[in-house]
Amino acid sequence: MQRAAPQEFTRVLSSMCTEPHPVAREAAERFLATNPGDPATYQQIADLERRAVETLGEITRLDAPHGYIASGGTESNIQAVRAARNLARRDDPNVVAPESIHFSFQKAAEVLGVELRIAPVGDDYRANLDAIAEHTDEDTVLVAGVAGSTEYGRVDPIPDLADVAHDHDALMHVDAAWGGFALPFTDYAWDFADAPVDTMAIDPHKLGQAAVPAGGLLAREKRVVDALAVDTPYLESTSQATLTGTRSGAGVASAEAAMRELWPGGYRTQFEVSMSDAAWLADQLADRGFEVVEPTLPLVAVDVPESLFSALRERGWRISRTATGELRVVCMPHVTREQLSAFVADVDALR
Amino acid sequence: MQRAAPQEFTRVLSSMCTEPHPVAREAAERFLATNPGDPATYQQIADLERRAVETLGEITRLDAPHGYIASGGTESNIQAVRAARNLARRDDPNVVAPESIHFSFQKAAEVLGVELRIAPVGDDYRANLDAIAEHTDEDTVLVAGVAGSTEYGRVDPIPDLADVAHDHDALMHVDAAWGGFALPFTDYAWDFADAPVDTMAIDPHKLGQAAVPAGGLLAREKRVVDALAVDTPYLESTSQATLTGTRSGAGVASAEAAMRELWPGGYRTQFEVSMSDAAWLADQLADRGFEVVEPTLPLVAVDVPESLFSALRERGWRISRTATGELRVVCMPHVTREQLSAFVADVDALR
Repeated sequence: MQRAAPQEFTRVLSSMCTEPHPVAREAAERFLATNPGDPATYQQIADLERRAVETLGEITRLDAPHGYIASGGTESNIQAVRAARNLARRDDPNVVAPESIHFSFQKAAEVLGVELRIAPVGDDYRANLDAIAEHTDEDTVLVAGVAGSTEYGRVDPIPDLADVAHDHDALMHVDAAWGGFALPFTDYAWDFADAPVDTMAIDPHKLGQAAVPAGGLLAREKRVVDALAVDTPYLESTSQATLTGTRSGAGVASAEAAMRELWPGGYRTQFEVSMSDAAWLADQLADRGFEVVEPTLPLVAVDVPESLFSALRERGWRISRTATGELRVVCMPHVTREQLSAFVADVDALR
Repeated sequence: MQRAAPQEFTRVLSSMCTEPHPVAREAAERFLATNPGDPATYQQIADLERRAVETLGEITRLDAPHGYIASGGTESNIQAVRAARNLARRDDPNVVAPESIHFSFQKAAEVLGVELRIAPVGDDYRANLDAIAEHTDEDTVLVAGVAGSTEYGRVDPIPDLADVAHDHDALMHVDAAWGGFALPFTDYAWDFADAPVDTMAIDPHKLGQAAVPAGGLLAREKRVVDALAVDTPYLESTSQATLTGTRSGAGVASAEAAMRELWPGGYRTQFEVSMSDAAWLADQLADRGFEVVEPTLPLVAVDVPESLFSALRERGWRISRTATGELRVVCMPHVTREQLSAFVADVDALR
């Protein structure tokens, strides 16, 4: 039986997911047949989920965290908007977020019937506090900031955004789905101890090196998760706060195993390696005259001609673009310096 | 490395999930690191997803099916309600369903801001056509029926329900999440060829013997899936119709592998074995004087005293109850005659 990831994976520079750590893979394979969506039936996986949430609390500096292992950042973001909507009970609720927010907020707004108010970002690609404040009013139920943006890896001024949110009796949500396993090793103010954050998305299946699906939804207060609960008549347990029903025990078990193995030392080492790779790639591309967005987390965005982008894709590189057209390279754990060198060599050959 | 499912799994009689078929497990393990939520990046898994949806079309007798491999039946049901809501654009939309409908419709209604109208079922535990019609009006956007109900394994009169739906310009949804891989071997009228069904939930990770997460959402018309699409700025693909973002390649690959291996012969054999096991268990329990709901699909509900239910749970049996308190035994592929004999022996020892 072939153990390796499919061949195509080796040239993936555009993904925010990665090859699971070996211990995460083993745990996923062991628990492939369990369903944490039915915790009383699958008690062993339910215990692992509690441990996983506890560790996510350590990583984000939240004592006694509430939450669960979600299918991913999109579910966590939808659920944060849903909880805020359900708790606030406004006739015409809105959510305020910077334009750098993940597109799952568009999905959340459409699904939940909530208005999404997008505020422009500054030249630094981060939320502009004045713009966020201007968009916020008495019907705002949630202010969302991103800690490690999808396109440029930027971190919004979370403490300031939390002040704006709470000044309007809205909840504060941080989308750290991608950045959450890198930010503990930076000086950014982003977590539950840095600011009065109410909810957070942080995904073990991204930089946490767990197998998909393993997202994380965290909440400071129990009432937030309770606002998501629906009754579950026929299950042994009596209510369910998740967006999905049956869930993947593989994802939960692999998240718990990866975090037990890698937090904090393994994640720190990976962050340092990926960060230096990103800086190296940025320098290499800048030396060649391309306009590079300086990486602050392991993600490089560079302005290249359409023709070069297409030629690199034809060479088999799995790359993607920002909304404004820059080529994105996400330095995930599966992306090595050798891979990046080969990529740069192809840039030289094709430009 | 331990390959077997965790110990607790061996006495699970209450789950609608099961041990994945070996080929499904192998495929899940191979594709653990892929993300069909990013199809242009992970093209191999995207191809497998197209094949899986094609096969689901064969099973449900729908040519050129539209849809995708979802996280499970809950997502598929939420998405069917969402599509109907989005297409109908009513100010005050409602969904009509029998009380036997899965609780995920309660979740869908709450999430989507749609009124859920629950119609009583008949003595046969199936949707009562008059009651469904009485609850349906010009604001009804979807009528939902269940083909293999969670509590009693009953199949609603799908063609009649579809007529009611279309008489009111509503869409018709069939929840075959559990029953879909058994019903092709019965005489029930439930699929896209039997009735003008618009959408269906059918889960490979239940009787399809795939690994979790592998649900299925099918639609007869492309416009229904298009009504779910949101733009995806930074992905290589340009829009996304799923409720989640990152998805499990393992689930998709295992669904495709299980169906390739088992459809139709393997599923037919499993259905016949499970059906005879269910009939055997029903007889055994009836012989002991318990009131048994005659199984029409491989699911047995039996009225037992609370004290016996508790004693069986203390013996380690993972069992659950219907809303009205009957003990449910779901004869999934992992449930063997030997297991059921041991269960009956414990019933004798404890009653």
